[in-house]
Amino acid sequence: MRAVQKIIAGASEPKGAVERLFRLVELDLSAVNTLIVERMQSSVPLIPELAGHLIKSGGKRLRPMLTLAAARLTGYTGGAHIHLATAVEFIHTATLLHDDVVDESALRRGQAAAHMIWGNAPSVLVGDFLFARAFELMVEAESLRVLSILAHASAVIAEGEVMQLSSVRNLAISQDTYLKIVSAKTAALFAAAAEAGAVLVRGEPAGEQALHDYGRNLGIAFQLVDDALDYSGREAMMGKAVGDDFREGKLTLPVIVAFAKAQGNADETAFWQRTMAERHQSELDLTHAIHLIDKHQAIGATLARARHFADEACEALAMFPDSAMHRALVDLAEFCVSRAY
Amino acid sequence: MRAVQKIIAGASEPKGAVERLFRLVELDLSAVNTLIVERMQSSVPLIPELAGHLIKSGGKRLRPMLTLAAARLTGYTGGAHIHLATAVEFIHTATLLHDDVVDESALRRGQAAAHMIWGNAPSVLVGDFLFARAFELMVEAESLRVLSILAHASAVIAEGEVMQLSSVRNLAISQDTYLKIVSAKTAALFAAAAEAGAVLVRGEPAGEQALHDYGRNLGIAFQLVDDALDYSGREAMMGKAVGDDFREGKLTLPVIVAFAKAQGNADETAFWQRTMAERHQSELDLTHAIHLIDKHQAIGATLARARHFADEACEALAMFPDSAMHRALVDLAEFCVSRAY
Repeated sequence: MRAVQKIIAGASEPKGAVERLFRLVELDLSAVNTLIVERMQSSVPLIPELAGHLIKSGGKRLRPMLTLAAARLTGYTGGAHIHLATAVEFIHTATLLHDDVVDESALRRGQAAAHMIWGNAPSVLVGDFLFARAFELMVEAESLRVLSILAHASAVIAEGEVMQLSSVRNLAISQDTYLKIVSAKTAALFAAAAEAGAVLVRGEPAGEQALHDYGRNLGIAFQLVDDALDYSGREAMMGKAVGDDFREGKLTLPVIVAFAKAQGNADETAFWQRTMAERHQSELDLTHAIHLIDKHQAIGATLARARHFADEACEALAMFPDSAMHRALVDLAEFCVSRAY
Repeated sequence: MRAVQKIIAGASEPKGAVERLFRLVELDLSAVNTLIVERMQSSVPLIPELAGHLIKSGGKRLRPMLTLAAARLTGYTGGAHIHLATAVEFIHTATLLHDDVVDESALRRGQAAAHMIWGNAPSVLVGDFLFARAFELMVEAESLRVLSILAHASAVIAEGEVMQLSSVRNLAISQDTYLKIVSAKTAALFAAAAEAGAVLVRGEPAGEQALHDYGRNLGIAFQLVDDALDYSGREAMMGKAVGDDFREGKLTLPVIVAFAKAQGNADETAFWQRTMAERHQSELDLTHAIHLIDKHQAIGATLARARHFADEACEALAMFPDSAMHRALVDLAEFCVSRAY
């Protein structure tokens, strides 16, 4: 029980609309946290040690909350949504562990990334373990539909990551290609998390599609706002440093927009080539990058895109009657964008 | 179709008892090879490129053959075993991709390992992709039992790998602990592959257990013979160089036996400590290692263990009436050990 308390305490304090949603699923989420601790156990001590490091380090539990909320919104009254939400968080944790190895990121949620402490090998393997455990949890929910949705989403996530890897030094990538990557690597799990919660109750199939669309659009909006905040946010608000994406050479929408608008300007083009494609950066480059992004109003363009997807997310829920849960999900999409202003 | 032909051509020529089993499942295996090519496709070109490199490089397709054989042995007449066998091969391929990153192995099946060509990041991600695809294939077989068996096996495999990682420099590891590692990291997939094939037909549950036990014991025997061959085999027979395990500092049964028998002999103990625990090796060390393994009859001890597990594998099949498939599986277990003599 101690470990559970620590995990709950470790999770980030939910704010704004996230808190409203949190209150509505609080009891279920507490059951999820208990199950997380139970199922990350293993007779091999390094597994719960490494997994616990990441799981206890916070995180908003946004994806499992979507599963829980979708189950409630569609009138599900059983207990399988707890297993699904736990599976969703395990898949998310597994992808984070692998991502940090892939990106060679030093930090995750303001702490040393697991591979910096234990090395790449255990990070890869514990990710595999959590991924397998996620499928064991789904089997317990006894729904082939759910297994299909989350297996497919997992393949799409990996595809999105490889797509990103393949275009990492290509500044001329189109906005559409970038949105395709975000849709796969980030939004697919949001979509699957929400859809899976809606599948448990044998209701209108339209409810599943609506929640899939809500999750997908929310996920894209969420990522684009993160992209914008990385060049414009206050550090305290993000729990990570401004300029992380820049320093890691991560191509995101603000840079893609600024680079596209720099065509014909040899200095600007050369700056982005050097800092992002060739990864040769010096101390003052971040300031100059922010200046160019500002000059071309790339933050505004990114947030306008995010706003569009947040609106689509809200519209997807129009079929559901008014309820506290419905309003909390609409507010969440609004909040996702408004936190950037 | 071309790619399929190449894959079939690429697979190692089956020998001895493997060939007898191969002939009995040949048509099914050809369907599996077609499905492998179909399902490793992706709109992201790097995925089939990297996956294809490993899949085309040979391999005996032993695990999917077990699934196909088990399905036939238990009288299954449907088509879902093709999907399961493909899923089993995908899980195997995913673990190989991750293993090579974890072990930093330069070669796999006599070719450059994928991570040596494309780097660690795509190897990790394509492994994830194949793992997810495996679960998609299993969903198509519409059996929660099968999903449960292979999800559990996947978690056990990861546990076995982490267990091995945790004891990599511990020469004093007991034989029992080593067998526990082998049982998890290698034999769990053999067991699950055979059991999954037996689950498709709603028959005697004892058939499932028997095939699980057959696969598990065969898998352990298989690994122990590989361990022995690494210090005693002819290269042409193995498709890999003698001494690979030694050079990579992989603790296997011959070394564990030789180290245990060296107690009280300071020179020998120091030799193993230096070469295996500290990984300081010079040119002539392999010859001396083989000499010490020989002196303590560690190959004989390893093969005696392997023989025991092969016998257990055959005994597990005693419940099945005589048939060509039954005999091929018994012969396979026999062959597994006899190839070392």
